[in-house]
Amino acid sequence: MNDCIFCKIAAGQIPSATVYEDETFRVILDMNQAIAGHMLILPKEHYADLYELPEDTAAAAMRLAKKLAHAAAATMDLDGLNILQNNGEAAGQSVMHYHLHVLPRRRGDDTFPVWNERTASSEELTQTAETIRKGL
Amino acid sequence: MNDCIFCKIAAGQIPSATVYEDETFRVILDMNQAIAGHMLILPKEHYADLYELPEDTAAAAMRLAKKLAHAAAATMDLDGLNILQNNGEAAGQSVMHYHLHVLPRRRGDDTFPVWNERTASSEELTQTAETIRKGL
Repeated sequence: MNDCIFCKIAAGQIPSATVYEDETFRVILDMNQAIAGHMLILPKEHYADLYELPEDTAAAAMRLAKKLAHAAAATMDLDGLNILQNNGEAAGQSVMHYHLHVLPRRRGDDTFPVWNERTASSEELTQTAETIRKGL
Repeated sequence: MNDCIFCKIAAGQIPSATVYEDETFRVILDMNQAIAGHMLILPKEHYADLYELPEDTAAAAMRLAKKLAHAAAATMDLDGLNILQNNGEAAGQSVMHYHLHVLPRRRGDDTFPVWNERTASSEELTQTAETIRKGL
């Protein structure tokens, strides 16, 4: 897409701190490092989100995320790692070009608060499971 | 693993609200629903995290996450969706059996706070990218 910043970064038209590149993806460090080593896996083709991304590319992105997780653990001081992918503004997606976050974590960092949990009733669980199964 | 609750749930030894099942995975609704429709993809074999999970299984989990994302969008009221996978206590992993969260989101929910961003210097970015590349 002509006006998509991640298309331009993935194509190398805008410079970035590139960690990895192949025919399908470019992996960069997010300019807004939530924490040191915060990476983004960008497909070179434009897809808005996981809904548009072809299944094979989604699978390849996760293979690459695992490779990057191992690389980060081998080279950086880290105690954990999150994989995160946001779809839609309501989910915190700010650039509408699919990207997969790989986030090294350190003990005691407050980078990434865990959500508030609430225990659901078994009726709610059963009913919701039934609902979603209808879409499969 | 004998004492792993997700092994028992995945094997059907402990009942769960199951959304999907095949030879490799069971998908359940998290008992602690961060939001209605909060799903967990559990491999039936025990792997602690993404580091232990075979690459092919990681790829298959993401294919399945995409399928579930479409199913949730087709059947539930949602405005967005997160895919999240935590590795290590420092990253918020509470059960040490690999699991991939699929989280429907609604506009204005406060389920899942986005992290605080900080802009990194280009020196920091260049140096960090160089460090991680050494592990690839």
